[in-house]
Amino acid sequence: MWCAVHRLTTRVSAFSLNSAATSSRRYNAQSVALRLSSSTSEASPLTVIPRVKAADATEASEGPVLVKGWVRTLRKQKEVAFVQINDGSNLGGIQCVVPLSEIDEDTKKELDKVSTGCAVVIEGPLVKSQGGKQAVEVTANKLKVVGECPGDTYPLAKKRHTLEYLRTIAHLRPRTNTIAAVARVRSHLAGAIHAFFQEVGFVYVQTPLITASDCEGAGELFRVTTLEMDKISDLPLKKTEDGKGTTDEIDHSQDFFGKPAYLTVSGQLGGETYASALGDIYTFGPTFRAENSQTTRHLAEFHMVEPEMAFADLDSAMGNAEQMLKYVVKHVLDKCQEDLEFFSKFYDKELIKKLEALVEQPFARVSYRDAIAYLQEEIAKDPSKWQFPDVEFGTDLSTEHERWLAETKFGSCVFVYNYPKAIKAFYMRDNDEDGGETVNAMDLLVPGVGELVGGSQREERLDVLLDKMGELKLDPEDYWWYLDLRRFGSVPHAGYGLGFERLVTYVCGIENIREAIAYPRYPGHAEF
Amino acid sequence: MWCAVHRLTTRVSAFSLNSAATSSRRYNAQSVALRLSSSTSEASPLTVIPRVKAADATEASEGPVLVKGWVRTLRKQKEVAFVQINDGSNLGGIQCVVPLSEIDEDTKKELDKVSTGCAVVIEGPLVKSQGGKQAVEVTANKLKVVGECPGDTYPLAKKRHTLEYLRTIAHLRPRTNTIAAVARVRSHLAGAIHAFFQEVGFVYVQTPLITASDCEGAGELFRVTTLEMDKISDLPLKKTEDGKGTTDEIDHSQDFFGKPAYLTVSGQLGGETYASALGDIYTFGPTFRAENSQTTRHLAEFHMVEPEMAFADLDSAMGNAEQMLKYVVKHVLDKCQEDLEFFSKFYDKELIKKLEALVEQPFARVSYRDAIAYLQEEIAKDPSKWQFPDVEFGTDLSTEHERWLAETKFGSCVFVYNYPKAIKAFYMRDNDEDGGETVNAMDLLVPGVGELVGGSQREERLDVLLDKMGELKLDPEDYWWYLDLRRFGSVPHAGYGLGFERLVTYVCGIENIREAIAYPRYPGHAEF
Repeated sequence: MWCAVHRLTTRVSAFSLNSAATSSRRYNAQSVALRLSSSTSEASPLTVIPRVKAADATEASEGPVLVKGWVRTLRKQKEVAFVQINDGSNLGGIQCVVPLSEIDEDTKKELDKVSTGCAVVIEGPLVKSQGGKQAVEVTANKLKVVGECPGDTYPLAKKRHTLEYLRTIAHLRPRTNTIAAVARVRSHLAGAIHAFFQEVGFVYVQTPLITASDCEGAGELFRVTTLEMDKISDLPLKKTEDGKGTTDEIDHSQDFFGKPAYLTVSGQLGGETYASALGDIYTFGPTFRAENSQTTRHLAEFHMVEPEMAFADLDSAMGNAEQMLKYVVKHVLDKCQEDLEFFSKFYDKELIKKLEALVEQPFARVSYRDAIAYLQEEIAKDPSKWQFPDVEFGTDLSTEHERWLAETKFGSCVFVYNYPKAIKAFYMRDNDEDGGETVNAMDLLVPGVGELVGGSQREERLDVLLDKMGELKLDPEDYWWYLDLRRFGSVPHAGYGLGFERLVTYVCGIENIREAIAYPRYPGHAEF
Repeated sequence: MWCAVHRLTTRVSAFSLNSAATSSRRYNAQSVALRLSSSTSEASPLTVIPRVKAADATEASEGPVLVKGWVRTLRKQKEVAFVQINDGSNLGGIQCVVPLSEIDEDTKKELDKVSTGCAVVIEGPLVKSQGGKQAVEVTANKLKVVGECPGDTYPLAKKRHTLEYLRTIAHLRPRTNTIAAVARVRSHLAGAIHAFFQEVGFVYVQTPLITASDCEGAGELFRVTTLEMDKISDLPLKKTEDGKGTTDEIDHSQDFFGKPAYLTVSGQLGGETYASALGDIYTFGPTFRAENSQTTRHLAEFHMVEPEMAFADLDSAMGNAEQMLKYVVKHVLDKCQEDLEFFSKFYDKELIKKLEALVEQPFARVSYRDAIAYLQEEIAKDPSKWQFPDVEFGTDLSTEHERWLAETKFGSCVFVYNYPKAIKAFYMRDNDEDGGETVNAMDLLVPGVGELVGGSQREERLDVLLDKMGELKLDPEDYWWYLDLRRFGSVPHAGYGLGFERLVTYVCGIENIREAIAYPRYPGHAEF
């Protein structure tokens, strides 16, 4: 056994240890010297040289370090060459200065192979940078190209590309500044969402994606099946009689789950079952809508954060949503400064100010009735300015209304609460005080983006819920398990949903939700 | 506006604020006094009384607190009643002692309604417990039942149920000790996985679940469609000629994505694209296998953690997997002590010792060739003891072999590496030193569970990868984007996959993977 271990440990290649995995951020880095000849043919003695990532290169080093990444630009002068390396750990990368008169023949030959996009390993000390942009740079004593990148075929060879073009090469677009920065910010947002809920004692529940019920009735569903769907003759059939004759129907009892199954549109109902046992829970996972929508705000596959709290009302839900958003945005302001500055520069000049305001200003709260009154008053001044000037109790607010409320009327994030029953879902709790006209629902409207969060207190009273379902002709049999929560130890509870990709677009100041996710899914698009 | 805010803030109900959301763990709790009459009919002055969760009840309080949860047991004596409350925040819950001679008439009436499973709110001071089990208990001056639970119909009224029965009431089973403890441990494991990777600078990438390619060739796939699938006559058809005649084929160009689409079996290939730009990434999300499997180890919908590291080899992948597992298991040992003690008591006496050993012992490493030699030597002693005594180079190890290696030969977690090419996937990197017979693949074998992690260094050389695909008759056209990674700035890279539900069963010491997830999906089962 130990012999085997030893053999593996010494079977090192030039690029053997990944220092991020065993990284200086937490773990001690061990890395192996750059050997410029082929790693298999030469038995050179090992020297441990630490790998440094661009994000961690803040101070001059005592000895040589390894820098591994992809070349962004190469600029050759008479005495020196400047190689700008990006390793994905930050936006700016790291500058490598190659002293042309001091390098050996091998490195000279390698330097001739360098082009935009190629992968290199560089060895040399980190020294104080003489330019102003970065604190340190590498003096590259040795350089090796590990993966070439032919400029005549590389789809990213040119410097600027449109975001539309980049979507067609979604496997390469994270190599661009914009998409790499989105990926880093998105990752920090997701990490902070988990950190927030774990810190406040919420249990993370992964609710199922495949479901045999369409409980939200949210409309367009994807069907999931293992039935053979190439030739009609492969499908299992059963004949049904309807008086007028027989029809061939597909026999779903032969499908994988023994009945029709779908991709979920929300984890909420499952979340309620766990909140009714564990108190406070959250979900964070994919959801699906088969809407034939080509807007910049919709995806067929997206991610939702759905907390659910037992012994809680609408006020708790609003309080939790506000705290959570402030927490995660503050986290990103702290951790992604360079990326946010990039977005400020190229996408939204007001971005950082906007995010700081979200963290610092209390969110406003306004009832739906009052919001309608404010809108009516404003629209009356000049109805011609509005696309939808007819606003009254019962109107489903459109984006222009939502943005006016957040951006102009309140100048901050604003919760609108107590919506008309008729425009909200069946499971939302009736307001007793309000003549039965409204439910305990809320939407959070955010300047620049509109609705970001929607939530409600759930109807926990069995009789009221059954009445509401009756009005909507929903069959209680389909909801037996959901109704059980109201039969056995029912408690007031509330929750909300946050569209994660909308949060990403908002925090990055970008327009299109298709840039907020690695591989966007929308009608006609499921490549990669 | 501020008027509206004020109105909402004072529109409190008896159970208005959820203190976990604004919790004592991090945020200051604000909670509202228990008003025993209906919250709508009485305008009593507000008193802020903090809510305390069972997990946070460690010290006597200065004044009264609110405890909100579900009743596990009620025991009435002459002078006092003991109400054991569980709020999901921990296993043990909290004991409430009701001094019968000191409570008012309302509370007496409420006490008569208490039964197992009902939801209650209790008000009174936390005091040092006189029993030995808990540090503190509540002296319940007031009690209110907020959700009754009729014992004659409550499916959990009896104390002990089989796990099989509990699966049929998966919406209620988190109210049991076992499933609640699994949920808490699972949540801590997931939180720790995110925390680990975020700390070491990996970028979280959410790879798509809907895909138009079956790149792993992993066999049984779920199809995703929006075609109307009730009547045959609803399906769009196209006729195809094959020489022998025409066939009716389903026209997938009319489907949502314009072609057949499936649920992914792995995020790896997408992960590789992001690692080739951002360096170190991880995925953590659902994956799907439509295997007709009824074992205790397989689910149709499960979760995988798939890190991918650029400039990394197999050694890096093993090192990272070992660090990650030690980190997350240590986290759970620290945070879930009470739950782990419960599992030790009822499911696996050796559990905590086993988990501590995982954290403390270095993982062994053995080449596949050496592992085969060890097995041959052992089997030769008494072949009749083995179900599969024929073991030679090329054998796909079975669970009895894997468990012997981990449990007996090494007595620890063990990485087996350098597997025969023929039994591993096409994208794994050929070992140059080994006569082309093996690839840089590894499996982590864990005592008591078998394979928990599988990984490899990926083949980064375009020509070698194309040769391998040719041998397997894979069409390079289908993999154009995957091959692009080898065309443009290719780097040595490696990664692995961890089956999250297997980790949950292992850490909880439970047998069946169907208990490791909230709503298990397997053939014939997609309820709830």
